[in-house]
Amino acid sequence: MIVISERINGLFRSVGKAIDERDADFIKQMALDQVKAGSNILDVNTGPGRDNESEDLSWMVKAIQEVTDVQLSIDTPNPKAMEAGLKAVNNKAMMNSTTAEQKKMETLFPLTKEYDAEIVCLTLDEKGIPNDAMKRNELAMLMITTAMGYDVPVENIYIDPLIIPVGAAQNQGPAVIEAINLFKMLSDPPPKTVVGLSNISNGTKQRSLINRTYLAMLMGAGLTAAIMDPSDKDLMKIAKTGEILLNKKLYAHDYLQV
Amino acid sequence: MIVISERINGLFRSVGKAIDERDADFIKQMALDQVKAGSNILDVNTGPGRDNESEDLSWMVKAIQEVTDVQLSIDTPNPKAMEAGLKAVNNKAMMNSTTAEQKKMETLFPLTKEYDAEIVCLTLDEKGIPNDAMKRNELAMLMITTAMGYDVPVENIYIDPLIIPVGAAQNQGPAVIEAINLFKMLSDPPPKTVVGLSNISNGTKQRSLINRTYLAMLMGAGLTAAIMDPSDKDLMKIAKTGEILLNKKLYAHDYLQV
Repeated sequence: MIVISERINGLFRSVGKAIDERDADFIKQMALDQVKAGSNILDVNTGPGRDNESEDLSWMVKAIQEVTDVQLSIDTPNPKAMEAGLKAVNNKAMMNSTTAEQKKMETLFPLTKEYDAEIVCLTLDEKGIPNDAMKRNELAMLMITTAMGYDVPVENIYIDPLIIPVGAAQNQGPAVIEAINLFKMLSDPPPKTVVGLSNISNGTKQRSLINRTYLAMLMGAGLTAAIMDPSDKDLMKIAKTGEILLNKKLYAHDYLQV
Repeated sequence: MIVISERINGLFRSVGKAIDERDADFIKQMALDQVKAGSNILDVNTGPGRDNESEDLSWMVKAIQEVTDVQLSIDTPNPKAMEAGLKAVNNKAMMNSTTAEQKKMETLFPLTKEYDAEIVCLTLDEKGIPNDAMKRNELAMLMITTAMGYDVPVENIYIDPLIIPVGAAQNQGPAVIEAINLFKMLSDPPPKTVVGLSNISNGTKQRSLINRTYLAMLMGAGLTAAIMDPSDKDLMKIAKTGEILLNKKLYAHDYLQV
């Protein structure tokens, strides 16, 4: 399971303040903490409502790269800021994200190709998020074939079926599990899959318990990666145990410590 | 998720002693505790090496039925004891278990029919436990069709793909998940499925964590029932949360309490 940290996001007040004040030490320490907690990729997001998102994003990327060479995911809805972020990244970048909307794909897939980046593809189009697994699968197929038209290989694609909070639309819980199962059959090798895990528990009282139960279910269905909080130790224990149970890491009595 | 309690088993020393001493109060209290902890079915097993298993089993069943009308599962490899247990049960019984061995099926399916019981069918034959999902599925199909020949409807069948300890054969973890997925396609409605959950963590140091992670994975794949320990509160929380995430119980903020 590829753990993508969700914490370096200007939506969190302390991070937003660090961006405003150009407090690079704060961002660097946070990046180191996230890597130490088990992140394989750091999602980098300035948060909304910024006058100069491109500059903010480049600054964040550069600060982080001074202390770690972990993979970075540039998370912005703004194509200009996306390109600025990609330019600043030294290693292979992840782009977060496109949807199945034609305009978005036309703008973003050329960048994916140019920077040999990975890209998160949300199963969402002009009509919104489909409410069943089959329609999510159709959008996934559309995004994969469109990407291939731009010479973006399926290996660089992460399909995100879009988790809806369990308290808002409970029937979407099993629909997303089914979608993860369906995506596996779209190509060989199958496209990678990713979710924004904590959406599932938004507005509930048992956030960590719901997050970790759902993570195990999605891992069992074949999920490749999750944007999640690696500082939630109970969640990370489930992620590590899931790897063992899926035979992706060798079992040892002290597997939690390694 | 149907929770089948594994605790009323003579293998546990206190239970074995209660059977020896005909301490009905102990068995009754244990049954009440298991139901209170969330069991939907109580597995009743005398443990091995008893001179008069039929009598012991009948006595246990009668004691339990004096305090609860919860469903009972008669767990014995001995066909005579199985029939004695079935005779003693007032409500619909579960039989635990047959394998795909012809002799076993010939002996047990007629009892299943006669007592209109449910039966756990282990994917195991003269050659042992298959080491992949497809062969488990073939044995499941054989048991379902054989059962139908004895006029046992698929609704009364629980297929058990047989969990192997993760420390003993790690590749069997994903194989059992895949088998649960395959079984769903065997008939419409699909056969029910069941596992002996705690086998997965046998010999490990993180028993509860491994049990509950695997339970969530199997629930995500469509598992109907698990023989497990309902007094493990962390495990029961995952089971309840899984029901919510699969949209089988309505979400409410206090869903853990109901």
